Amino acid sequence: MSLKNDLILRVARGEKTERTPVWLMRQAGRILPEYRTIRNSVSGFKELVETPELAAQVTIQPVDILDVDAAIIFSDILVIPEAMGLTYEMVEKKGPHFPETINSQTDLLKVEVADPDRLGYVYKAIEITKNELNGRVPIIGFAGAPWTIFSYMVEGGGSKTFSKARRLLYTDAGMADQLLEMITESTTGYLKRQIQAGADMVQIFDSWAGVLPPDHYTRFSLRYISKICDAISEVPLTVFAKGAWWAMEEMNKLNCQTVGLDWNMNPEEAKRQLPNKTLQGNLDPCALYGDNDAIKTAVKKMLHTFKGHPYIANLGHGVYPDTDPGKVKYFIQSVKELSLSSSFPQPEAPWQKRVYNKNADNPLIFKSYSR
Amino acid sequence: MSLKNDLILRVARGEKTERTPVWLMRQAGRILPEYRTIRNSVSGFKELVETPELAAQVTIQPVDILDVDAAIIFSDILVIPEAMGLTYEMVEKKGPHFPETINSQTDLLKVEVADPDRLGYVYKAIEITKNELNGRVPIIGFAGAPWTIFSYMVEGGGSKTFSKARRLLYTDAGMADQLLEMITESTTGYLKRQIQAGADMVQIFDSWAGVLPPDHYTRFSLRYISKICDAISEVPLTVFAKGAWWAMEEMNKLNCQTVGLDWNMNPEEAKRQLPNKTLQGNLDPCALYGDNDAIKTAVKKMLHTFKGHPYIANLGHGVYPDTDPGKVKYFIQSVKELSLSSSFPQPEAPWQKRVYNKNADNPLIFKSYSR
Repeated sequence: MSLKNDLILRVARGEKTERTPVWLMRQAGRILPEYRTIRNSVSGFKELVETPELAAQVTIQPVDILDVDAAIIFSDILVIPEAMGLTYEMVEKKGPHFPETINSQTDLLKVEVADPDRLGYVYKAIEITKNELNGRVPIIGFAGAPWTIFSYMVEGGGSKTFSKARRLLYTDAGMADQLLEMITESTTGYLKRQIQAGADMVQIFDSWAGVLPPDHYTRFSLRYISKICDAISEVPLTVFAKGAWWAMEEMNKLNCQTVGLDWNMNPEEAKRQLPNKTLQGNLDPCALYGDNDAIKTAVKKMLHTFKGHPYIANLGHGVYPDTDPGKVKYFIQSVKELSLSSSFPQPEAPWQKRVYNKNADNPLIFKSYSR
Repeated sequence: MSLKNDLILRVARGEKTERTPVWLMRQAGRILPEYRTIRNSVSGFKELVETPELAAQVTIQPVDILDVDAAIIFSDILVIPEAMGLTYEMVEKKGPHFPETINSQTDLLKVEVADPDRLGYVYKAIEITKNELNGRVPIIGFAGAPWTIFSYMVEGGGSKTFSKARRLLYTDAGMADQLLEMITESTTGYLKRQIQAGADMVQIFDSWAGVLPPDHYTRFSLRYISKICDAISEVPLTVFAKGAWWAMEEMNKLNCQTVGLDWNMNPEEAKRQLPNKTLQGNLDPCALYGDNDAIKTAVKKMLHTFKGHPYIANLGHGVYPDTDPGKVKYFIQSVKELSLSSSFPQPEAPWQKRVYNKNADNPLIFKSYSR
């Protein structure tokens, strides 16, 4: 079925659009009372993730309620370690916990490259969502970056420093590479199946990019993200590496269309260092705690900052759980209205249009293009 | 009494020294079995902090055992909120917890500018340490940066996002400024008393710098750090703002002698953006999990990187609790040996020597100086 609103896909490809598209990381979930009703009807977070009908329902909620320009499938990045053989529990208010972890060569025997079929519930949720959305907005699929998934598998849960995971990079880089390679392969297969099921775009979340020193980031994270980017050419791909401000120049070379920016990143630097990428995000999620006037001012500033560069409006992090949904709506509405006005034109300068060609060896072919 | 080893003070002032000085953040504490013996002899962490004889003992331990070039007084940055009227508990394995927090104008009535006399146990610990060290190495005093202290007072403990603290900057900037001002005044008085008691150098730790967007960092953190820097001219001062890589150019303008670098920061950028500052730190604390050969290689690389710039060797974060003290010793030994060798000369290029003048309005007077 054809999409009625494909703004986000066109901007990802560097095309000129009538206004700036907008969605929010973690838009499906905790901020909506409608989500909490469904969440309370099941035994736990994982049951919700694994029940396609319900996952589809909460995926569609922000499209209905908040009027965002894309739906992101309700799931969790930790389904990959689970599909590899390492189960996790989601502990209420504490986060994920892995009873077993990977810390040695022997531990590697506990896991294998994931059979993509094990994650059928995700593809099913995408299919239901696709069917129910009926082309209203595109669906974003996603996965964790190999380094972030590795961190959880080694550490066993969240951590302030992820020093157990980082330790392995110094003590057994060979073993770390083996595990990262297995995660990369698992993730690639998983993303391809999400796309087959109907994902119109995919995003890689490198949530713990920021704990690595820059040289390790290149060596143990970007290297594997790059492999995934090279393998996925079916749909536009976004890489969001939270905290990896130092890697922008390298990320400009990735085979991806869009780069996500957290709220610490300097937009001017991002525009300079990522000339070939559509940019996404950047607003401090705490800005939505301000009053409507402050939100409007922040949106104006943001649109002004990214003026002239293909841009998808979003926050610099997942929306915080205690954000008032009314403020989120106001934010989305402001982006839509203000970006339509003549003060914030879409790129007008000659822009390197990215011609999207899924059959090319390199899906990014640059062509000079005057708007 | 005169100092037998004043390397760190001379490097802080930009003077040429015979080798690179070295110490570790959190060197007094968890990594040493000798510390744990003393820690287990008291009821809790806070009792240790508040007992000057014991605090002095654990302060001196790393000088005896690890052979570092400076002692940092054993204490906690949270003594300031406590002296302001907000008590905290240190929960084993969880971190600090404040039963009461500051979240509104009314809450401000719970606190006042700290009477420096309330922290007599810290000054006493410094005096005992000074006496017992008998000039072997300088003593570093410290305090948290106002923003970091503010974060704890508003949030009530550690947090991944400090979104409650950051929320206030959007919802009640005026109240935030009032609290930050009170913390700044309290901290200035506290540092001055540490110096009177014998601290030869002081360091400001902005542990949660990295959660702020750059414009808020300038507005709500650096602004108050700058006030403290302007008020302290008795001894060299170090500012360590973890995660605030974007603020280097602004930090170069601070009235401080040394800037600390975390392990994410790019040393080349730091040298370029902080030409007037001595630099400190930067090695990934996880590097000490590697074997001795790897540690030596890392030290060589580090000394090579900072060659030609006044530099104090340190990690980019506090040493992690599970680090082998033998590895720490090897690290310290390697810095000392390798920096003595001819391959890693101290700055030779014409360097802007910072003439240290405690009576000048601005303690930093630059003079061209050829080594």
